[in-house]
Amino acid sequence: MTVNYVEPRVSGTVPTSHVDLTGLDALATPRGIAIFGASSDPTKIGGRPLRFLKESGFGGGIHPINPRYDEVQGVRAHASLDDVDGPVDLAVVAVPRDHVLPAIEACGRKGVKVATVFSAGFSEQDDEGAERQRRLLETAKAVGVRILGPNTIGSLNRRTGAVGTFAAATGVRPTRPIHGRAALVSQSGAMAAHWVVEGLDRGIEFPTWIATGNEGDIDFADALAWVALHDDAPVIAAYLEGARDGDKLREALAIAQQRGKTVVMLKVGTSEAGARAAASHTASLVGADQVFDALFRQYGVIRVHSMDEVLDLTYAATVGKAPEGDRVGLFTTSGGMGILMADVATEAGLQVPPVPNALRAELRAIWPPAGVNNPIDLTAQVMNSETLLGDFADVVLREKQYDCLVMALTYMGRLEPWTDLVVSMLGRVREAHPDVPLFIAMLATPEVRSAVEELGIAVFPDVSAAVRAAGRLATHALEAGRATDDRGGGAAPRIAADGAVTEVMAKTILAEAGVPVVEERVVTSAEDAAAAAEAVDGPVVLKVVSPDIPHKTEVGGVALDVRSGDAAAEAYTRIRAAAHSARPDARVDGVLVAPMVTDGVETILGAFNDPTFGPVVLFGLGGVLVEVLGDVTYRLAPFGPQTGMEMIREIRGFAVLDGARGRPPVDLDALAQALSALSRLAHANRDVLDSVEVNPFLARPRGHGGLAVDALITTRTGRRS
Amino acid sequence: MTVNYVEPRVSGTVPTSHVDLTGLDALATPRGIAIFGASSDPTKIGGRPLRFLKESGFGGGIHPINPRYDEVQGVRAHASLDDVDGPVDLAVVAVPRDHVLPAIEACGRKGVKVATVFSAGFSEQDDEGAERQRRLLETAKAVGVRILGPNTIGSLNRRTGAVGTFAAATGVRPTRPIHGRAALVSQSGAMAAHWVVEGLDRGIEFPTWIATGNEGDIDFADALAWVALHDDAPVIAAYLEGARDGDKLREALAIAQQRGKTVVMLKVGTSEAGARAAASHTASLVGADQVFDALFRQYGVIRVHSMDEVLDLTYAATVGKAPEGDRVGLFTTSGGMGILMADVATEAGLQVPPVPNALRAELRAIWPPAGVNNPIDLTAQVMNSETLLGDFADVVLREKQYDCLVMALTYMGRLEPWTDLVVSMLGRVREAHPDVPLFIAMLATPEVRSAVEELGIAVFPDVSAAVRAAGRLATHALEAGRATDDRGGGAAPRIAADGAVTEVMAKTILAEAGVPVVEERVVTSAEDAAAAAEAVDGPVVLKVVSPDIPHKTEVGGVALDVRSGDAAAEAYTRIRAAAHSARPDARVDGVLVAPMVTDGVETILGAFNDPTFGPVVLFGLGGVLVEVLGDVTYRLAPFGPQTGMEMIREIRGFAVLDGARGRPPVDLDALAQALSALSRLAHANRDVLDSVEVNPFLARPRGHGGLAVDALITTRTGRRS
Repeated sequence: MTVNYVEPRVSGTVPTSHVDLTGLDALATPRGIAIFGASSDPTKIGGRPLRFLKESGFGGGIHPINPRYDEVQGVRAHASLDDVDGPVDLAVVAVPRDHVLPAIEACGRKGVKVATVFSAGFSEQDDEGAERQRRLLETAKAVGVRILGPNTIGSLNRRTGAVGTFAAATGVRPTRPIHGRAALVSQSGAMAAHWVVEGLDRGIEFPTWIATGNEGDIDFADALAWVALHDDAPVIAAYLEGARDGDKLREALAIAQQRGKTVVMLKVGTSEAGARAAASHTASLVGADQVFDALFRQYGVIRVHSMDEVLDLTYAATVGKAPEGDRVGLFTTSGGMGILMADVATEAGLQVPPVPNALRAELRAIWPPAGVNNPIDLTAQVMNSETLLGDFADVVLREKQYDCLVMALTYMGRLEPWTDLVVSMLGRVREAHPDVPLFIAMLATPEVRSAVEELGIAVFPDVSAAVRAAGRLATHALEAGRATDDRGGGAAPRIAADGAVTEVMAKTILAEAGVPVVEERVVTSAEDAAAAAEAVDGPVVLKVVSPDIPHKTEVGGVALDVRSGDAAAEAYTRIRAAAHSARPDARVDGVLVAPMVTDGVETILGAFNDPTFGPVVLFGLGGVLVEVLGDVTYRLAPFGPQTGMEMIREIRGFAVLDGARGRPPVDLDALAQALSALSRLAHANRDVLDSVEVNPFLARPRGHGGLAVDALITTRTGRRS
Repeated sequence: MTVNYVEPRVSGTVPTSHVDLTGLDALATPRGIAIFGASSDPTKIGGRPLRFLKESGFGGGIHPINPRYDEVQGVRAHASLDDVDGPVDLAVVAVPRDHVLPAIEACGRKGVKVATVFSAGFSEQDDEGAERQRRLLETAKAVGVRILGPNTIGSLNRRTGAVGTFAAATGVRPTRPIHGRAALVSQSGAMAAHWVVEGLDRGIEFPTWIATGNEGDIDFADALAWVALHDDAPVIAAYLEGARDGDKLREALAIAQQRGKTVVMLKVGTSEAGARAAASHTASLVGADQVFDALFRQYGVIRVHSMDEVLDLTYAATVGKAPEGDRVGLFTTSGGMGILMADVATEAGLQVPPVPNALRAELRAIWPPAGVNNPIDLTAQVMNSETLLGDFADVVLREKQYDCLVMALTYMGRLEPWTDLVVSMLGRVREAHPDVPLFIAMLATPEVRSAVEELGIAVFPDVSAAVRAAGRLATHALEAGRATDDRGGGAAPRIAADGAVTEVMAKTILAEAGVPVVEERVVTSAEDAAAAAEAVDGPVVLKVVSPDIPHKTEVGGVALDVRSGDAAAEAYTRIRAAAHSARPDARVDGVLVAPMVTDGVETILGAFNDPTFGPVVLFGLGGVLVEVLGDVTYRLAPFGPQTGMEMIREIRGFAVLDGARGRPPVDLDALAQALSALSRLAHANRDVLDSVEVNPFLARPRGHGGLAVDALITTRTGRRS
């Protein structure tokens, strides 16, 4: 394997206000590594790091710390870190929990930058362990040592040979040439180790990986930000259960996005049963899975839901290359496989444009029985011809109508006499079309896989997995082409911290924030009712305003479709009389006059204050069915109208807004602006806000904007700490 | 490999009125096989069947037919089939298309039962080929020979060694012991061959498979029915693109269901691009994918959407066993993996019941750091202990609270020193709990996989795939526990073949069929209006009835919430006057008096006549959003109320009917009865019916039934042939 050693960049070049990168370079480029509890048994947890270090090519000092021996596994040992000569930047701590604290103190004296603590028995165990961890971290902070863990499997940097792990996976070496390389950041050591082993089987190596364990100090966000800044892997595979500090995670993802990294994220805890399994989490944290989803969308993260997908996409993105658009050409050896590919491509959001007519004729001239639409069915003849695949690819790609090709070649890579043929066929296609991403679905021997991967072509055993990988990477590339970190701009009004916000106040605040609100007036005379009605363009409604009359229609307290000032005056008088007659004791504050809007689609705009991520904005259509179906989408505030438009377009019921059943399409721009305005308002008041609900917000036909008809703002009693 | 030869059962024991099993036994147990176009080159299409036959252990006569040689590949050849001594039941036809017809005529003279025609150039090619196929089939029918193909890769029966295929896959033999065996029926030869090869890699063999090619005669339904009746494989993997005869396919699936077969079905053509790819299909056939989906639900077919899923489920169902219920116990070596498993289990429809408290204490006594809820986290300690896994399984399974266990054991099957340990650990669990289905997720060497499979335990590399397989099989088992082939019963009225069906007629027909219809009367005097209103319990609505007044409200032709006979009389007079004033020339047939129902949820009940499957009933909620989201479900008519209830419960918006947002739940039984009644009506009139739409059907609160408010029945102009 070629080691591409990368000089770490100075952390200070990227402004970070939440993540803390202090000392993390020591995980990659320590001048020396000390091992507390180093064992002479190379299979024990205390023995493995030393064994791995001896084999890793690490160039710095290796210092076993063990008071019982002068040497361990043939390496000079010391009774204490204080006795070690030369610099030590990284310490591996593999001692029982009660011996960790003195080890950290010794690290402090020696100037160690990071101590990786394998030891268990801390916050993952019980309250006593949590207290033990608190004391450990307090000491580490006092002596200036950062902690990875405790209860972590550690980290590895194969580029420098810096081993800080006991994972048995470290000893597993590839049995065939590997062409995919990615970084890995994980909150679970077992998950990281599993990916390392399975990755090698699939053709990916993780030369840099960090598992964060209990996250007493260095957490997922720190590790992700460090890898994004200092590792040259273009892809980061990540495993996440939850986050304590939402701002930190958001910053780390923003850094990864700015650095152009492709983050493939397995975030678990989507279900109630999963939440129960995540014993270390509060229910609210795991319950906020939709908020994580919103975060990932905002920062261009490829979210997946299985280990298979993590590895498939990491493999596809590192061995091959991502398509820059969503137009796919599908090659197949059989009609059936072609139909399946077209189905999956559609499901994966890819376009399957037909082959232009002129080119079809050319293809037919090459091999008359071929299917020359898209999918392109080369028939089993591809197995009998040295030239057919390449000739077809040349024709199909000539007009640059396809952003990538997916080719299903059944078992050609698995059976004689086709194994050599398929490698040379694909070599010719790659040579002729070096920039076209190719995704191959076929069964293949390890040798054939490596040979094809060396061409920069990803090979999948399953045709659906190949098409889906192309689809996910294409979608990601298209999303990455949009503006990043769309935080919007503009001022927002402040909401008073204490006291109730009435509906009138809420509407005033929203209007000031830029959310259009229905123009309504409360009047207390027939004359004012007439004037208010005349000020409105179109019919109005009148409603009695009284805290004592909840059901206004029943008492005759409502008049609809009032079309003149006179009619409004009359309605005013009638409503007052009816209210008095039905409820003589009721307080009546007046009568509300508002335009009667009948051409709007009811939507809901809302914001709530997530305990981890702060204000989150939601959008959905109105009505009980939407609630039942959960057809609601979220984004972290603040954001600009572009993000608002993404929200609108991603609900399943979008067609209702876009002119379903012959209705006029609604004013999507106004809706997107309103969402952005709401997000700015929520963000500006995150210290006092509990929630905002604009329900309904009427989305009116294009050019007519929208109107908040009802609004509720609630504030917290206490302030955010 | 053990050959479990099964004496074919007599087809006649199962009444079949659509599928045609004549002669199909010859694919499995021919007394002799002739090969037209037998080649001395064992790699050629004409040479492969002979090569495979020589190696297959086939005990009958093998007869190469080739006028140019006396022997082919060492086997005595004949110039003509007429020269062959001894019986020939199966003929393989590997000659150019223009030589096929004389070969079939020779087959007829010899008494051949089935001719498998490899040759291409028939209906798959062009109109000329279609005509060639028509002539071929005409001849075959005349001489009493059934045809598999043309343009087929053929069939194989490894139990008897009957080879009727040129698939190179036939020559691929397993490299490790195989413990899964299933049958395979496919409309695509390439797909079948691919499954055969990939199956061996995954641990499944397909000893019996049939690929139907152009389906000139023997089609998918015939082959499926034959396999269901005459092969002892409990699982049938199937690939389907479409069907020409819906009744036939329905009968074949009913037979498979009656025989207790698990059918794992990859049906393609779900997308528009897929439909375009299926060039040989009409758009309507592929477009009816939802109808296939309904068919599969009705006959307990496990429908999947990728080859991976076909093989995963076939493997799980044949190597292991299906859970009989949906309660899963999840074992893991790490918390993270456990959360992921719980998420996937929930998504897959499994229950993840917590471990009872008393048992938790026992587990904690065995290994204190373990997570003893469900998922059960054994921690990495499972890799250091010979007994931990078995001891935990004993406790967890004691109270029979779990229908199956899924265990994620990371890479224990892949790395020393754990490979032997994991096999012995699982052996102990299997011995102690022989009847509990076990699904293992781990990376494993081929040797470990075979050893674990020999215990009747399925091993998956991916944890999500393992959990999903458990979920699909459990769901299938629960569905199979319900009554099968629920066709309902009872008479239904006949609809006249010709002429328009008015709304009044439609409602009369529906009421007679058993669909409750709103009780409404058309009156022509104020007195009758009063009488009609008084006959109704509760308020009524009145509407002018006129073919010339489409927008009734605009002309004052509607009165709502009329609460007495007097008020109804007055409303009648007002409506007549208003209608006359607005449209003096309009024909007015009277005024309709109907109960005003305000407590119903709007639903849609419909039926349409699918060109392949005949009448199909649909159900969904009312409203534009449902249409946009496609939240509609289908079933083939006729069916009983149980199937109706399944339809109601499977729409995504079911909670709207079941009391969402504090509303009363609706009368589900009445709704299910109405769906069943509609299905009987549609079925009884399938020869004349085009469509029925009951929109809205108001589902009223429990105990209050439901009401068809509006109904439309359309008939065909021509009759079904």
